[in-house]
Amino acid sequence: MWGGRFAEGPSAIMREINASIPFDKALWRQDIAASKAHVAMLGAQGIVSAEDATTISAGLDTVAAEYERDGVPENWDLEDIHMTTESRLAELIGPVAGRLHTARSRNDQVATDFRLWVRDAMDQADAGLEALQRALVMRAGEHADSIMPGFTHLQTAQPVTLGHHLMAYYEMIARDRSRFADARRRMNESPLGSAALAGTGFPIDRDATAAALGFDRPTRNSLDAVSDRDFALDYLMAASACALHLSRLAEEFIIWASQPFGFVKLPDTLSTGSSIMPQKKNPDAAELVRGHAGRVIGCATALMITMKGLPLAYSKDMQDDKPPVFEAAGLLALSIAAMTGMVADTTFVTSRMRHAAELGYATATDLADWLVREADIPFREAHHITGAAVKRAEADGVALDQLPLDVLKAIDARIDERVYKALSVDASVASRSSYGGTAPVQVEARVAEARKALGMDD
Amino acid sequence: MWGGRFAEGPSAIMREINASIPFDKALWRQDIAASKAHVAMLGAQGIVSAEDATTISAGLDTVAAEYERDGVPENWDLEDIHMTTESRLAELIGPVAGRLHTARSRNDQVATDFRLWVRDAMDQADAGLEALQRALVMRAGEHADSIMPGFTHLQTAQPVTLGHHLMAYYEMIARDRSRFADARRRMNESPLGSAALAGTGFPIDRDATAAALGFDRPTRNSLDAVSDRDFALDYLMAASACALHLSRLAEEFIIWASQPFGFVKLPDTLSTGSSIMPQKKNPDAAELVRGHAGRVIGCATALMITMKGLPLAYSKDMQDDKPPVFEAAGLLALSIAAMTGMVADTTFVTSRMRHAAELGYATATDLADWLVREADIPFREAHHITGAAVKRAEADGVALDQLPLDVLKAIDARIDERVYKALSVDASVASRSSYGGTAPVQVEARVAEARKALGMDD
Amino acid sequence: MWGGRFAEGPSAIMREINASIPFDKALWRQDIAASKAHVAMLGAQGIVSAEDATTISAGLDTVAAEYERDGVPENWDLEDIHMTTESRLAELIGPVAGRLHTARSRNDQVATDFRLWVRDAMDQADAGLEALQRALVMRAGEHADSIMPGFTHLQTAQPVTLGHHLMAYYEMIARDRSRFADARRRMNESPLGSAALAGTGFPIDRDATAAALGFDRPTRNSLDAVSDRDFALDYLMAASACALHLSRLAEEFIIWASQPFGFVKLPDTLSTGSSIMPQKKNPDAAELVRGHAGRVIGCATALMITMKGLPLAYSKDMQDDKPPVFEAAGLLALSIAAMTGMVADTTFVTSRMRHAAELGYATATDLADWLVREADIPFREAHHITGAAVKRAEADGVALDQLPLDVLKAIDARIDERVYKALSVDASVASRSSYGGTAPVQVEARVAEARKALGMDD
Amino acid sequence: MWGGRFAEGPSAIMREINASIPFDKALWRQDIAASKAHVAMLGAQGIVSAEDATTISAGLDTVAAEYERDGVPENWDLEDIHMTTESRLAELIGPVAGRLHTARSRNDQVATDFRLWVRDAMDQADAGLEALQRALVMRAGEHADSIMPGFTHLQTAQPVTLGHHLMAYYEMIARDRSRFADARRRMNESPLGSAALAGTGFPIDRDATAAALGFDRPTRNSLDAVSDRDFALDYLMAASACALHLSRLAEEFIIWASQPFGFVKLPDTLSTGSSIMPQKKNPDAAELVRGHAGRVIGCATALMITMKGLPLAYSKDMQDDKPPVFEAAGLLALSIAAMTGMVADTTFVTSRMRHAAELGYATATDLADWLVREADIPFREAHHITGAAVKRAEADGVALDQLPLDVLKAIDARIDERVYKALSVDASVASRSSYGGTAPVQVEARVAEARKALGMDD
Repeated sequence: MWGGRFAEGPSAIMREINASIPFDKALWRQDIAASKAHVAMLGAQGIVSAEDATTISAGLDTVAAEYERDGVPENWDLEDIHMTTESRLAELIGPVAGRLHTARSRNDQVATDFRLWVRDAMDQADAGLEALQRALVMRAGEHADSIMPGFTHLQTAQPVTLGHHLMAYYEMIARDRSRFADARRRMNESPLGSAALAGTGFPIDRDATAAALGFDRPTRNSLDAVSDRDFALDYLMAASACALHLSRLAEEFIIWASQPFGFVKLPDTLSTGSSIMPQKKNPDAAELVRGHAGRVIGCATALMITMKGLPLAYSKDMQDDKPPVFEAAGLLALSIAAMTGMVADTTFVTSRMRHAAELGYATATDLADWLVREADIPFREAHHITGAAVKRAEADGVALDQLPLDVLKAIDARIDERVYKALSVDASVASRSSYGGTAPVQVEARVAEARKALGMDD
Repeated sequence: MWGGRFAEGPSAIMREINASIPFDKALWRQDIAASKAHVAMLGAQGIVSAEDATTISAGLDTVAAEYERDGVPENWDLEDIHMTTESRLAELIGPVAGRLHTARSRNDQVATDFRLWVRDAMDQADAGLEALQRALVMRAGEHADSIMPGFTHLQTAQPVTLGHHLMAYYEMIARDRSRFADARRRMNESPLGSAALAGTGFPIDRDATAAALGFDRPTRNSLDAVSDRDFALDYLMAASACALHLSRLAEEFIIWASQPFGFVKLPDTLSTGSSIMPQKKNPDAAELVRGHAGRVIGCATALMITMKGLPLAYSKDMQDDKPPVFEAAGLLALSIAAMTGMVADTTFVTSRMRHAAELGYATATDLADWLVREADIPFREAHHITGAAVKRAEADGVALDQLPLDVLKAIDARIDERVYKALSVDASVASRSSYGGTAPVQVEARVAEARKALGMDD
Repeated sequence: MWGGRFAEGPSAIMREINASIPFDKALWRQDIAASKAHVAMLGAQGIVSAEDATTISAGLDTVAAEYERDGVPENWDLEDIHMTTESRLAELIGPVAGRLHTARSRNDQVATDFRLWVRDAMDQADAGLEALQRALVMRAGEHADSIMPGFTHLQTAQPVTLGHHLMAYYEMIARDRSRFADARRRMNESPLGSAALAGTGFPIDRDATAAALGFDRPTRNSLDAVSDRDFALDYLMAASACALHLSRLAEEFIIWASQPFGFVKLPDTLSTGSSIMPQKKNPDAAELVRGHAGRVIGCATALMITMKGLPLAYSKDMQDDKPPVFEAAGLLALSIAAMTGMVADTTFVTSRMRHAAELGYATATDLADWLVREADIPFREAHHITGAAVKRAEADGVALDQLPLDVLKAIDARIDERVYKALSVDASVASRSSYGGTAPVQVEARVAEARKALGMDD
Repeated sequence: MWGGRFAEGPSAIMREINASIPFDKALWRQDIAASKAHVAMLGAQGIVSAEDATTISAGLDTVAAEYERDGVPENWDLEDIHMTTESRLAELIGPVAGRLHTARSRNDQVATDFRLWVRDAMDQADAGLEALQRALVMRAGEHADSIMPGFTHLQTAQPVTLGHHLMAYYEMIARDRSRFADARRRMNESPLGSAALAGTGFPIDRDATAAALGFDRPTRNSLDAVSDRDFALDYLMAASACALHLSRLAEEFIIWASQPFGFVKLPDTLSTGSSIMPQKKNPDAAELVRGHAGRVIGCATALMITMKGLPLAYSKDMQDDKPPVFEAAGLLALSIAAMTGMVADTTFVTSRMRHAAELGYATATDLADWLVREADIPFREAHHITGAAVKRAEADGVALDQLPLDVLKAIDARIDERVYKALSVDASVASRSSYGGTAPVQVEARVAEARKALGMDD
């Protein structure tokens, strides 16, 4: 009658839509750890006997060893990692296994397991990002005075140093790390002991289980504890911001690697070649990183939508918290690693970069600034004079600093020979030595600070 | 030095980030079919010899049989399903396998394979939605005159019929089917023969391959053909709209199943019980359908972001088109099937529904309408009179139709005994017989049309 | 006590959060039109007297004239455009104004008004996109044989023609128009007469009002009609897909306008210059179009999230349907117009395009194809030979077609002098004459078809 | 020729797409403040004369006074708030106005202004959320022992206290405040002095301007400073998480206000009534808050998409950062205020809540726990016994605590009369006194802590 997939019957559909074991088996280490902390506490509090606690704990070790060796079995009838483990435990140690579930529920159990997993993912992101920072700082140090065009609107604007450019990403990544750190601190509370939704009447010690699992403290409200997924969302938001930064860096590598730019030679190890066009190196890794930003943000969007409008306390919708987090974590880890390799191993073709900076009158602003500084001309008027000089240079087909002094003086009599010092790309970048500016001296100072912060000189 | 995941070395990262075989192996049937169509055309056009064409085609059949029997091997070095198949083909039939790739490229090949896959997903969605419509129509027919409260703002507003309520979803699903049909028609063009990006110099017959694969015609521009993912996005947009409709229906089942409502008893086959609270039936399937809407929309968002700002032609970012589509298709198929079961097998507790409709002065609008119609009072004045009547009924703790005539006449002298006919919930729904209204006669007419459209009376 | 904004008191908050008049006044033309259609029908059906109908209709004309002249007044106490108009009507014509609201409700009224607005927006998008197509076709016709590098991965891959590249966007825009057309057809049904949610007992003629407002038919289910926002979502989805296409074209203009590419000189009218760097032309319009894609997709996302999980029928959440649609429509109209200007008025620097295509061994594939075609070598072996030739050319610092014949013969003896015909960029593009390929003859054929379809030759 | 909107000509389109003054005039206070800080520093450093600095500063005060009095004029030719102000300043004080722009650019200027605006929005959100917390704590204190059903899957699960339920939202809001605080700390750095992208050669004092504007320090990299919009994204992400929490609370009020629940009577000041159905109170404010979550998240999505893949440094796309932030800030402020009013002024119908909790065998878990605790039965076995007891109670149509002792003993002999103490809803909630549990004693402790943290007892 109903046809289609439903011909299998509603029970089959239910088994499939309900089973989370295909993905939540990823939580097995966390599930075992949390159960061991729980049963140790139950024993210490006398809620189960010391003997039972020992038996259960040893049984959990056996299950863990089996999982480590054989993987986690995927039996949809056991629904999730919690039931899978509990069922195997009962096979191994008999009915005493049933005491493990005293004073807890799957609701606080999954909240605990998943928090532990997400906390690990945050730590891994931080480690990966630190590696990326090291790569950036290393290359920035090499290129503190390599000159390239600084772009606005992807138009050549002013000369900058490559080291300065790379250190801009160091700053972005620093914010990413700070975002993960904030999220970690906010989420590091233990929901264990919140039970189904209301807490429990058993004399449990939530401080003990919190401490055993590395949490700073137990959560303060059981209804909130079992229905809160902020920690997952915080992770996804931090991952999204990070993926956006990586997408920007990836875009730059892709553009720089194009033949008309030719600013970089990408590492063979992170490109694909063409058997037919050996000069072609497709920036696949960078493109995938750029593309992955879409999927990571899609994961964050997914969880937000899923959580919208859910009344307290636990609703089954929340089971859809894990696939987006698992997917985003995988994509992010790979993206960070790929960009680290890209930064570390790319050959920067500094001659082409410098050449591009020298074209396009990128030092016109320096002429205007010189007029303000040395001839005390208001900025807007200085702009006007500079425009005339550039127009003349363009007409003559020469660079700004190739215009003879008499020509410049004809444009504005207040110009003198000192101006030439301002018009080379080297002079330009050297002059921009305000704090945070592109001057090599500034870049070197920032690199030194960063090396120290990263312990790179120890 | 770089630590973290990057310790594996950039090549290992590249292998992992670059390999699409873990997910694009889902395309194997489409890949074989497209290759067979291509080689048959190459043979017919004399681009490869008839003998070679036959050898290659037979070889492809062998590969397909192997995949069917053993699954597709996942070797990251072979990157994707195309290379995996080509490599196996070469093992089986030798260098002649290399001729298969004449006049095509992976760019048009993957575009073709993926279109075929998405087209199938559209057809499957349509079949599933038709089944859901059948279920809705069947139940609507049973309940054409079952009375329930019609809500606005989740407040009881006017009585409606359950059949009418269910047929509202029939309409939504009809739009979903129409959206998939539009998308199918728009995408049913063959990119095969667009080659890498520019077309080919070989004398290929694109009409022939298009026809062999069930496409209406070949695409008209090779650059567009290899860089277009509109078909995938159209699928995801239609899936998102559909998932939203299902989320609304799911929300209703969840609210209706709550103890204070008690409008439905959910099918055992689509709920989870509690070993401890047998009266409790968790609407898990409905909750998961509601939650899945978030993930399906997340998939659509992901692809949109990935495609944003990509220059022509193929960029590797586009490899991220498949995981969102595959994920959404799985979630949608399951969601449709679950809601079909829910609609088909739920027990509607019509007594409670009717009781709820009788509370709350849901027929107040009928009184106002009666005043307009029978006493020719402007609508806004009629509203005022009705307000007074409801206030009095509330004060007396009775239903509107339990107010004595003299009381009503004291409120407005133009009221007479005919008014009582308007004040029962049955009279109310019967009266709303405008086209598309909730009157049983209207519902029966809509159900009859729908049964005919679905061929349910054949 | 509560501090902050709430100090204003809840009533003030309610007035502000509840008022939609600041944005829904944009619906005034549609609201007047729908009211006029409604009252004409009420008169024709004898539900109101002919005289009253005439009075009301004339009153509505007066209100419309006032709005046209003075704008729509924004009085939060009147909440929305419907109450604002009804209130003014009552001032003008007295209590008879109250009869206008017979047999309808704000729920079907706003659904009708908003559909009419969205339908207009669809028509405007279509007109704008047709203009963009004309510009593309015009420029493609001029450049059917202008040679540029065809990129994959933003790496030079094979030479293509600029006309072919522009016609790829013609195809995308054609799909966009088809998407708007599908959405328009799906939504062109009149909800008027669905009343609050259940239909009405008045003997209305929904076919008449539908016809008067240009709808194909009335909607079939009143509950669906007042709680459906698919038409708005369909618009936003079509707008999102379109904005994505425009973002891709914008990205190309931005990259092409960069100094290292130098493929285009942007029109002064759509760039900003710099008073100081006259050679600099910032592609602001293209950047804004690219940026707007984010906001348009954000609007689509917003409405999807808002609609998720809403039970039937009308919920106030749906008031949040309008701001995203209004915002997206404004952004899209501007984006389409800006890209039309960009396409129409940009100067393509074909000399630089051609030069870029000649670099980079873009005809390597042509050599491989020649080997397959003329020497009957399997494609994979031909690739290998080509790789050797390119390597040699690279070592010698020459283009492929500058390698002497004896050098080529030393690489593979089957090569003869005919090969040179295949190695120029002109020969390359001319050869790719498969249907939809980049050969000028193909581009001209596609342009001719497009001109005909657009009526450009009439 | 091009028709449509483009008939206006590209220049008109450019003016419209380019002008940000229609929205960025909201930044005028920040723009004036930053300019005053800048010119004071220029004077102190001797970059402009003390006299000029004084003239400019006074001129800026005049402009500010004009804006305060008359609003900011919207002249598209002046593009944005910066040019609008500078132009007016020049009218007022003459060419010396041109010196204000020394050593800065619109790029660092807008980055500074917008940061200041976002910082204010964060502070306002924090103040609003504190008010909401006060309301929650106040009502939770009143209802520390009011009993209601605790739901999972919207099914009655275990009795909880209303105070506990409200305090769950206190926790969510605490996380929201912490998220805004983190974001504020991360973003509180001054970009002023980064100039166009590369820093400047003028001897500026960035510490001075940073301090004057309340920033903790200057940013460390000029390229990053002008192209970073993390601060806006952090705001939008925190706003999204907050809007999600508010959407959950709103959903609860909407469900609780429905007739079948009847848990609350909403405040008149935050509902709309119906002139015809005085008993009906539409929870408009709550619905709008729920709906607004969609738009706030849409704003966050928009900015993420806009920023994806942008190369350094400033691109015009970034002008699209402001509308989403302004929109989200307005929606969030209103949503917070509305929910504060809802929490503060709603009447909780505790009798209906308690009655609902007593139905549905919500204390079945308590029976199971009693069996574990008092009779030392493993949890899983205790569940089985409880299931039998509930089945019997259901069959007899009585509550669990109305089953006679002999009936209970027949089910399991280990049950004795002490069990009755566990079976009332009061006993149930009192028993759940684990840390963070629902017992009144726990709720009172949490309320006391919260009152202290909020300074409510001072």
